[in-house]
Amino acid sequence: MLRRIRAREWPPGAAIPNEADLAVEFGCARATVNRALRDLAAAGVLERRRRAGTRVAAAPAGRAQLEIPVLHRDVEESGAAYGYRLISRATEPPPLPLALRLGLDPARPLLHLCSLHLADDAPHVFEDRWINPAAVPEILSVDLERVSANEWLVENTPFSAGDMRISAEAAEAEVARYLGAAAGAALLVVERSTRRDAAVITHVRQFFAPGHRIDLALSTG
Amino acid sequence: MLRRIRAREWPPGAAIPNEADLAVEFGCARATVNRALRDLAAAGVLERRRRAGTRVAAAPAGRAQLEIPVLHRDVEESGAAYGYRLISRATEPPPLPLALRLGLDPARPLLHLCSLHLADDAPHVFEDRWINPAAVPEILSVDLERVSANEWLVENTPFSAGDMRISAEAAEAEVARYLGAAAGAALLVVERSTRRDAAVITHVRQFFAPGHRIDLALSTG
Repeated sequence: MLRRIRAREWPPGAAIPNEADLAVEFGCARATVNRALRDLAAAGVLERRRRAGTRVAAAPAGRAQLEIPVLHRDVEESGAAYGYRLISRATEPPPLPLALRLGLDPARPLLHLCSLHLADDAPHVFEDRWINPAAVPEILSVDLERVSANEWLVENTPFSAGDMRISAEAAEAEVARYLGAAAGAALLVVERSTRRDAAVITHVRQFFAPGHRIDLALSTG
Repeated sequence: MLRRIRAREWPPGAAIPNEADLAVEFGCARATVNRALRDLAAAGVLERRRRAGTRVAAAPAGRAQLEIPVLHRDVEESGAAYGYRLISRATEPPPLPLALRLGLDPARPLLHLCSLHLADDAPHVFEDRWINPAAVPEILSVDLERVSANEWLVENTPFSAGDMRISAEAAEAEVARYLGAAAGAALLVVERSTRRDAAVITHVRQFFAPGHRIDLALSTG
């Protein structure tokens, strides 16, 4: 498939045949085709879109890899000491807009955690997280005063799909207070939700302390 | 190499042998090894760090591909009409901190462009860009009133390395005015520089209008 893409037999933007047809054509198992398609998508050669199917990616100008941050690891790699503080823990229904966006029953309670990640005792990230105990029942027996949900979920809960959104927001009073920032300060906000098959695992909004930057190396082609 | 990584003969974090040794071992040209290493790095399997060399990437929790945006294309894909306006064009030395950061002679003038990208006639991105004419002499004969440098460079200037930084900033008065935002509004800022070999091609800061979000799909493994 890569040879065909490179030779422009399948040009940028072209829809590629479905898995079943490719398996017949290449004389291999459909699971093999599926794995190859996933690898090509992970490498950015193919784009898998919900409605448009799998297409050859438009020749990109350059790209960067962005990984789900394990804050513990990031802070320590920067040379600072990592700290973590659970601010609140509740079992409650999510706000209606969030429930609708995630496709969850708004009446069903989720685990709601607010926490603070620290670097050298200074606030680094304020985290507002919802966890679906129906998808991750084990979370209810984790000591979340000691281990952050960020770390526990990354290590223990494989996901099959997810999305990430990066934005800038003016700090609301409560978030500003925890981050030691002025209300209205410009904050980098990273929002993620992950799913295993159809089940929502978690939805999180991470508010980074003012001045935080995400640094990435660009690669070509 | 991928087989060795999957089999953990080369475990996460391990430094891998240098190109010359790999070429001998696999009995192939060094250019072939180099291309394979680049592909593995682009797929996120290897990490190439300036000082630490090439290592097997730590098993990531999930990752997303972020591409250099061609604003024209992005705006049109969102269903809006794209517009572009050159605000200023000057040939002048860069500010000292920028020159030092890019490793450029602070006395040598660069092409300095400020421009506005529009979506359905509303401000979308304010762009502050420096271009090194020593690396891209052709830029001096491009009609930059008509074609944005963003578009022209992406299409005409391959780069070999680059970096990207994402941050949130309070809008300064001039940027706020062009974006039709309140001074101090939280803006998402994407900063990039690209090089061809050692030569800096361009450095750009793009200030997105308030409320802009970068949406990414997460993939695993």
